[in-house]
Amino acid sequence: MALKGVTRASLMQVRVLDLEKSLQFYRDILGLVEVCRTTDGRICLKGYDEFDHHTFVIREADKPGLDFLAFKADSDQTLTEIEANTKKFGFPCEVIPANSDQPGYGRRVSVKVPTGHRIDIFAEVEMSKQHPDVKNPEIWPNGIPPIGVGACAFDHALLFGPNASETVRYFKEVLGLGVAEVAKTPDGQGDLCTWLTGSNRPHDVAVLEFAHPGKVHHYAFKLNSWTDVGRAADILTINNVVIDAGPMRHGITRGYTLYFFDPSGNRCELFAGGYAYYPDMPVRVWDFDQVGKGIFYYDRKLKDNYLEVVT
Amino acid sequence: MALKGVTRASLMQVRVLDLEKSLQFYRDILGLVEVCRTTDGRICLKGYDEFDHHTFVIREADKPGLDFLAFKADSDQTLTEIEANTKKFGFPCEVIPANSDQPGYGRRVSVKVPTGHRIDIFAEVEMSKQHPDVKNPEIWPNGIPPIGVGACAFDHALLFGPNASETVRYFKEVLGLGVAEVAKTPDGQGDLCTWLTGSNRPHDVAVLEFAHPGKVHHYAFKLNSWTDVGRAADILTINNVVIDAGPMRHGITRGYTLYFFDPSGNRCELFAGGYAYYPDMPVRVWDFDQVGKGIFYYDRKLKDNYLEVVT
Amino acid sequence: MALKGVTRASLMQVRVLDLEKSLQFYRDILGLVEVCRTTDGRICLKGYDEFDHHTFVIREADKPGLDFLAFKADSDQTLTEIEANTKKFGFPCEVIPANSDQPGYGRRVSVKVPTGHRIDIFAEVEMSKQHPDVKNPEIWPNGIPPIGVGACAFDHALLFGPNASETVRYFKEVLGLGVAEVAKTPDGQGDLCTWLTGSNRPHDVAVLEFAHPGKVHHYAFKLNSWTDVGRAADILTINNVVIDAGPMRHGITRGYTLYFFDPSGNRCELFAGGYAYYPDMPVRVWDFDQVGKGIFYYDRKLKDNYLEVVT
Amino acid sequence: MALKGVTRASLMQVRVLDLEKSLQFYRDILGLVEVCRTTDGRICLKGYDEFDHHTFVIREADKPGLDFLAFKADSDQTLTEIEANTKKFGFPCEVIPANSDQPGYGRRVSVKVPTGHRIDIFAEVEMSKQHPDVKNPEIWPNGIPPIGVGACAFDHALLFGPNASETVRYFKEVLGLGVAEVAKTPDGQGDLCTWLTGSNRPHDVAVLEFAHPGKVHHYAFKLNSWTDVGRAADILTINNVVIDAGPMRHGITRGYTLYFFDPSGNRCELFAGGYAYYPDMPVRVWDFDQVGKGIFYYDRKLKDNYLEVVT
Repeated sequence: MALKGVTRASLMQVRVLDLEKSLQFYRDILGLVEVCRTTDGRICLKGYDEFDHHTFVIREADKPGLDFLAFKADSDQTLTEIEANTKKFGFPCEVIPANSDQPGYGRRVSVKVPTGHRIDIFAEVEMSKQHPDVKNPEIWPNGIPPIGVGACAFDHALLFGPNASETVRYFKEVLGLGVAEVAKTPDGQGDLCTWLTGSNRPHDVAVLEFAHPGKVHHYAFKLNSWTDVGRAADILTINNVVIDAGPMRHGITRGYTLYFFDPSGNRCELFAGGYAYYPDMPVRVWDFDQVGKGIFYYDRKLKDNYLEVVT
Repeated sequence: MALKGVTRASLMQVRVLDLEKSLQFYRDILGLVEVCRTTDGRICLKGYDEFDHHTFVIREADKPGLDFLAFKADSDQTLTEIEANTKKFGFPCEVIPANSDQPGYGRRVSVKVPTGHRIDIFAEVEMSKQHPDVKNPEIWPNGIPPIGVGACAFDHALLFGPNASETVRYFKEVLGLGVAEVAKTPDGQGDLCTWLTGSNRPHDVAVLEFAHPGKVHHYAFKLNSWTDVGRAADILTINNVVIDAGPMRHGITRGYTLYFFDPSGNRCELFAGGYAYYPDMPVRVWDFDQVGKGIFYYDRKLKDNYLEVVT
Repeated sequence: MALKGVTRASLMQVRVLDLEKSLQFYRDILGLVEVCRTTDGRICLKGYDEFDHHTFVIREADKPGLDFLAFKADSDQTLTEIEANTKKFGFPCEVIPANSDQPGYGRRVSVKVPTGHRIDIFAEVEMSKQHPDVKNPEIWPNGIPPIGVGACAFDHALLFGPNASETVRYFKEVLGLGVAEVAKTPDGQGDLCTWLTGSNRPHDVAVLEFAHPGKVHHYAFKLNSWTDVGRAADILTINNVVIDAGPMRHGITRGYTLYFFDPSGNRCELFAGGYAYYPDMPVRVWDFDQVGKGIFYYDRKLKDNYLEVVT
Repeated sequence: MALKGVTRASLMQVRVLDLEKSLQFYRDILGLVEVCRTTDGRICLKGYDEFDHHTFVIREADKPGLDFLAFKADSDQTLTEIEANTKKFGFPCEVIPANSDQPGYGRRVSVKVPTGHRIDIFAEVEMSKQHPDVKNPEIWPNGIPPIGVGACAFDHALLFGPNASETVRYFKEVLGLGVAEVAKTPDGQGDLCTWLTGSNRPHDVAVLEFAHPGKVHHYAFKLNSWTDVGRAADILTINNVVIDAGPMRHGITRGYTLYFFDPSGNRCELFAGGYAYYPDMPVRVWDFDQVGKGIFYYDRKLKDNYLEVVT
């Protein structure tokens, strides 16, 4: 296989303030599929176009935010290598046994990165019963059109925290992710933000230097087109969802985007398009004073508080 | 890097009957960028969104068709391994020195596969001067909108020839491509056609069992959306290009598509969308009697002579 | 008002072979709203974006086809004038009293035109309870997204019959419709087909010279965009609806189009776009040998039997 | 004809600070066609999809803003009636002779309305040599794709001034325009803004109560789709045009929109879609506290200074 090692960000667990209200949001408005509930009351969901058991979990808590982001590796052997290399790299890690907190999932290597986030890596997961057709497939599973905005898959997350360069180095050197784009610090010497990917996606994860550890700026689900992004804005509006920015385009990744908040204040994104990344491409570099254009391509300046509001 | 080994089909040389007429077609109508002419009179082109020196070459000849299709490997070491593995696999191969027939290209391993096609593999190529922006990039190189239909990159080719299963086995076992979809023979025992990929693309190459060796059914350039496919049909029409089929959708790959003929009778495709393939996905399988739907999703039957007209 | 007299084709009654199957087709797949059933068992429907009580009626019968097409006039006074002018013009006409066969409708002037069709004209109709929002309106009634393909309104019909020029003359001289486009007969002397409109729509009705009287080639519902036409093809396909042609574009009207058959064999169209007609525009004229391009802009030739299959 | 009387806003003359820079903006970026220059140095332009001689004129001056907005009437007889009715209505008006300041134009009735704007009405104008095809028409004139953002026609203007209700009453009672939507004043008693139309367009002109006379908030050119609006944002961005708001959607008219400034500070709009207005529709009414949603449907609040920045 040409796609080897860690191929994608593919599971995320987030904290929400009200479970049922959040379920209604992610299922009925974003269009995620409800897969199951865990014995401790979390809800597992997935995009209609994903094969894995589930890819997004909501957990009721006092504060919103991210519990962990997980990456999928191509084999158990790769996972074993990652465990060894993580220890060698010097980051604390433990192994979470199969079928403990995540139904259908094999063992996970769980790493604490310096930005304060928990990053899991796994290789095995059961196929969801609600998977895309495999035999004479219709374009939608069982020929049933997606509901809500039709989010088809988990896409990526933007993490905020201190010592971003060390987290990035881990993602590159141990997980083997490629760097698609970098935004420089004001003095041009350091990296303010780095966009990394395990495949053609322009990003699976991005990491931005930030004073407070363990923060998530947003996480994104995939749509198929600019038209879908526009229709999503229509549907979010009629459902009184607070839109933060967009529909618009990023300079960085060139993707079409819409930012909005879930009922708990977690910023979500719907993302479509973007170029196809290959590791033989040069890293695209943004000067600090062009970051506004990089994110808000049409307005060419950052929205007020855009980099301050996180969960 | 998570994208390793052979990552994509990325260079093709085709025969055309009239060089200047073909240049006008590929450059002014499809929107490819003219890069250079070789000393022996061939013309090298590329998509505006590609970094490599060139990715598409036209050569004047008496008959249209394919000279060779080339894949890009991630390193010279991989190339050396492929050379050894090809010999071990038992297929004849030779090495074409750097900078011989393809300006800017490093050495290529050139293999004759049983379907009668020449397949090259290379690892090194110079970056084109007309590459996408790398520093504070605009969405188009230098902020100049693409011309014509705006084909942004070479995408894939469908090869026809005998002993398809052997060529497929080589693509899988030596080049490491993944199988995204398969169409079965009438008896359900064999494979009529196999779609293979080196990345998230749903296909880089497909191979169909056919009596005559070395044939190409079509080769495709990438567009960004269904809307671009529709606009391409408008632009081909006002330029009197013969449209073969579409705008429509494939069931196989789920891509949006438009087929048409270049001035020499080579069938071209403009392809957009399609799902993101990952190697942990099951192979999608089409029964023989559903192949019409697989290719012509809306009409649900093959167009007359669709499988007979090749070059 | 600048839109005066007869402003649009806005009501149609068609024959279907199986009422419930047809309801399922028009309501669940095309997305029309079911308004009511008449005491004699017909079903009244409308597009979600229409204010009138209903605009489309299906009646169970032995043969498919058109019962009548009705136009809306701006006032009862205009209706009275049309009645007088129809008699003066020499066409048989009668008045159908208010609230007889069409619930919610005022009196209709019913005319038999030489092509063998029944054409009604009315001025008064109750507003549907399921009308678009009027107070702080959402983009969809009550903020509920359309279902199925989301047909938003009745759009137009293409009538086939003998003495087309006389029916056209009536539409122009008595109903006051404007001629947007004309296709000429092979000798260039006569009109094979005429496209007429009461507003900016490029057509409300078209009339084609044909040996058999009272035939309908197709009737169309409105979509909002090329993207909606593509999505409609997806939805018709997963519902196993037979697609006749498209997604494609017309040269005539420049509209985007998809043709398909209802369960009784009536050809339907989904139509989007097209230029905005104004009466000060010259009539656009198509030579007979260009009619293929006029209808099938991308293929530039008529599909086999396209002009023969009617109901 | 069903479209009678005054059918559309169809000519506008605006003041710009630098003529050549403005020409470059309107021609090369917006894609208007340069038709001619007047002897006194103004430049006449038109959309590629318009038949009239020209529809947009730029005049170099010290301050940006609107010279006049003109409506087209269906006949010279209508124009004579409008002249008489204007005098009867009590507004000052004069007749501008044919071929004086506007090349190719017949006589115009020129009216000073209480909001401080000059409104012209005309009936006769020569057809432009660069008109859409009439004989076997391609979808674009001579089969040449539009340049820049591809603005196809003048669409509408939003006028600001005192005594808006009197200007509106004139538009309704003398010009015969229909009222599509109204936004109420804070007390719910009066009309803050009124949207009027002469055809299916959701608006040809809108008038908003404002302290300063003769102001224009924006004028709009037509695009064909949401996709075109997105592509326009791309093209404006690479040309460093200041985008004021959008891509987004209006609740009012339901159109897709993008606001930006010409080099002189005149706010322009690119507008696509919107419902088809008919005079038998009820007027849509917006409460004052919902006007933000009416204009900025996705953000649901007015952008700061949106109602203050005018020329």
